[in-house]
Amino acid sequence: MHEDNMDTPCMVTCTAPMNIAVIKYWGKRDEDLILPINSSLSVTLHQDQLKTTTTVAISRSFKEDRLWLNGKEEDISHPRLQSCLREIRRLARKRRSERNPRSTDSVGLSHKVHICSVNNFPTAAGLASSAAGYACLVYTLAQAFGVEGELSGIARQGSGSACRSMYGGFVQWILGSKEDGKDSVAQQVEPESHWPELWVLVLVASAERKPIGSTSGMQTSVQTSLLLKHRAEAIVPHRMVDMIEAVRRKDFPAFAELTMKESNQLHATCLDTHPPIFYLNSVSQHIIHLVHRYNKYYGETRVAYSFDAGPNAVIFALQQFVPEFVQLVQHFFPPDRNGEDFIKGLPVKSAALTVELKQSIGLEPLPKGVNYIISTKAGPGPLVVEDPSQHLLSAEGLPKKMV
Amino acid sequence: MHEDNMDTPCMVTCTAPMNIAVIKYWGKRDEDLILPINSSLSVTLHQDQLKTTTTVAISRSFKEDRLWLNGKEEDISHPRLQSCLREIRRLARKRRSERNPRSTDSVGLSHKVHICSVNNFPTAAGLASSAAGYACLVYTLAQAFGVEGELSGIARQGSGSACRSMYGGFVQWILGSKEDGKDSVAQQVEPESHWPELWVLVLVASAERKPIGSTSGMQTSVQTSLLLKHRAEAIVPHRMVDMIEAVRRKDFPAFAELTMKESNQLHATCLDTHPPIFYLNSVSQHIIHLVHRYNKYYGETRVAYSFDAGPNAVIFALQQFVPEFVQLVQHFFPPDRNGEDFIKGLPVKSAALTVELKQSIGLEPLPKGVNYIISTKAGPGPLVVEDPSQHLLSAEGLPKKMV
Repeated sequence: MHEDNMDTPCMVTCTAPMNIAVIKYWGKRDEDLILPINSSLSVTLHQDQLKTTTTVAISRSFKEDRLWLNGKEEDISHPRLQSCLREIRRLARKRRSERNPRSTDSVGLSHKVHICSVNNFPTAAGLASSAAGYACLVYTLAQAFGVEGELSGIARQGSGSACRSMYGGFVQWILGSKEDGKDSVAQQVEPESHWPELWVLVLVASAERKPIGSTSGMQTSVQTSLLLKHRAEAIVPHRMVDMIEAVRRKDFPAFAELTMKESNQLHATCLDTHPPIFYLNSVSQHIIHLVHRYNKYYGETRVAYSFDAGPNAVIFALQQFVPEFVQLVQHFFPPDRNGEDFIKGLPVKSAALTVELKQSIGLEPLPKGVNYIISTKAGPGPLVVEDPSQHLLSAEGLPKKMV
Repeated sequence: MHEDNMDTPCMVTCTAPMNIAVIKYWGKRDEDLILPINSSLSVTLHQDQLKTTTTVAISRSFKEDRLWLNGKEEDISHPRLQSCLREIRRLARKRRSERNPRSTDSVGLSHKVHICSVNNFPTAAGLASSAAGYACLVYTLAQAFGVEGELSGIARQGSGSACRSMYGGFVQWILGSKEDGKDSVAQQVEPESHWPELWVLVLVASAERKPIGSTSGMQTSVQTSLLLKHRAEAIVPHRMVDMIEAVRRKDFPAFAELTMKESNQLHATCLDTHPPIFYLNSVSQHIIHLVHRYNKYYGETRVAYSFDAGPNAVIFALQQFVPEFVQLVQHFFPPDRNGEDFIKGLPVKSAALTVELKQSIGLEPLPKGVNYIISTKAGPGPLVVEDPSQHLLSAEGLPKKMV
């Protein structure tokens, strides 16, 4: 075969969503297979606002596997990337040999892949993108290699929380008990259509300094926090049952209270880590106070917060209370630019705040504490992009921007 | 008896120390008797730097029990004050009747008391003074009424941690198991002379806002934190054994590591409280990072921190490392007034900081984050002031300043 005898590569483009855990994942029992110490549950966010797009091209003319992330070529030898590639190729091989046992080297299986991936939100937003990234990688590779079936166990080996991004709506990641991790997979609890009144606001906050990464953070927590061990063994199993029940019944107060308790318990175990890990800064504390005082003012739980291993806050609220709460955020975190572009995503109506409410909250405003808000809701799992013009790679298998 | 036939009141003045818990007390199993959910252990601080002084006067001419705190008359009907007064009078009555069964109304027992109490540190320092205050009240009342023996169980009923201030050096407050609390008392583990190399630095920090009080804070924690329950039942009992062992062996690294873990676990359970309680602010986080990076730089545990329900940090260090660490604090929390008066209490030699050390710590300086440092060490329990000129009350039983 000649070098210049170019094949048109087989090319697939897919998108995948981010997810926000409401029963938190913190700590692995197996670092290589990425097996967690407890089950977790998340809400898959809508891809209209936050998504990763990935194109995979397979061609006999490619010399090596290559990867571009957000326009920059990255080292594809990263063990977690290699795990995902290896597992998908293994499934593809298994499938081919089952269908056609005499096939020795089916087209594609020995070929190299080019992978190109972009996020539709700025890296500077500090949103952890590995869940959407690995979910999208695994889903797109599976499409390209013609693999079907349960894929969340493979996504899990890229990034733990990525397994939950393989489904839409409300998703649990089951702890599992097998040593090889085969039963540690994600399952949809309810689809995205189940609870349309539930809105999600991502409050993008500015970090004072780059916090410790979640991988090394949770490793130290597992090694040193006695409270984390107790949480995983004795507390989370009950909370999983309660959270699934709250989601199924669309019981917002139950969902919201448990979501806040879970967020706080995650950060409590971080503080119980030695040396301690801090992800909540003064802006986070301010948001927490704001939410509790808002709920107290109305004598009911209308809003909940959730924080992960970074400075951003995620707010859950029923649609009817979103305008007022967004207005409150804008009041207590006065933005730089007169509120213009302060809200991205789903449109939020403006609302008037009563003097009584503002006084009852009684917080000192923190100018520019929140950069902007992304307004969204629950959404579907990974999707195939049918329009070939959306491929991120050219016919030559290189990122289109770079051609 | 005529009004103008003034008796000279019986008058006693005593002083009592503050203490810093290294195994933390957080949570009561009985709010009225002040019985804790776990044992705790503390270091009694030297009264040369921090103490409460109390004068008790008893006179048949006094019309009612009265109390002055730091120059201001306070309502003596507070239930906890009344508990202490009642218990001391009960013991006095018991003692009198045992010695002289026919005595019906011994002098003093039916008489009213005037109490005057001052701290030798400014209220603005935000140092919790209730431990020293109630220890001093109970000790002085006991002296005035001629009561001897175990008094920490009475001090406990004023303020839980006050029972530990009834002894010098290293003191444990034993959980106890009796319903009436009779076995929930303090005991000296080692006297103040045991470990003279151990120094204590109180870093007085400015609070952004007044935090929630420890009484209501721990009440909410007991009601809502599952981690606190586990800590009290399953973690603290082992840590008490380890801490007593570390103190007895004067094993600074063991003492220091456990002290830091205890402080962090206390604040972890506060964060696990619903709604969560925050006592650590950005200055506290800065101090925590400073200590860990300092220890890491030397590859050994030279310094430990401990935080209670307020913004101040307490630092433990062996004497030889105090000058360098104080210099570091001054470097990373540049004071307002050129370091003048930055260090109060025991004199601290100046020290030079290497560029390498400062760079290795690598923190952004936080100007004025620490107001000043009180340098001290372990000290004795309550003491009687023999010099009558030191009484805080005049012969008429009124605060001297007000006469």
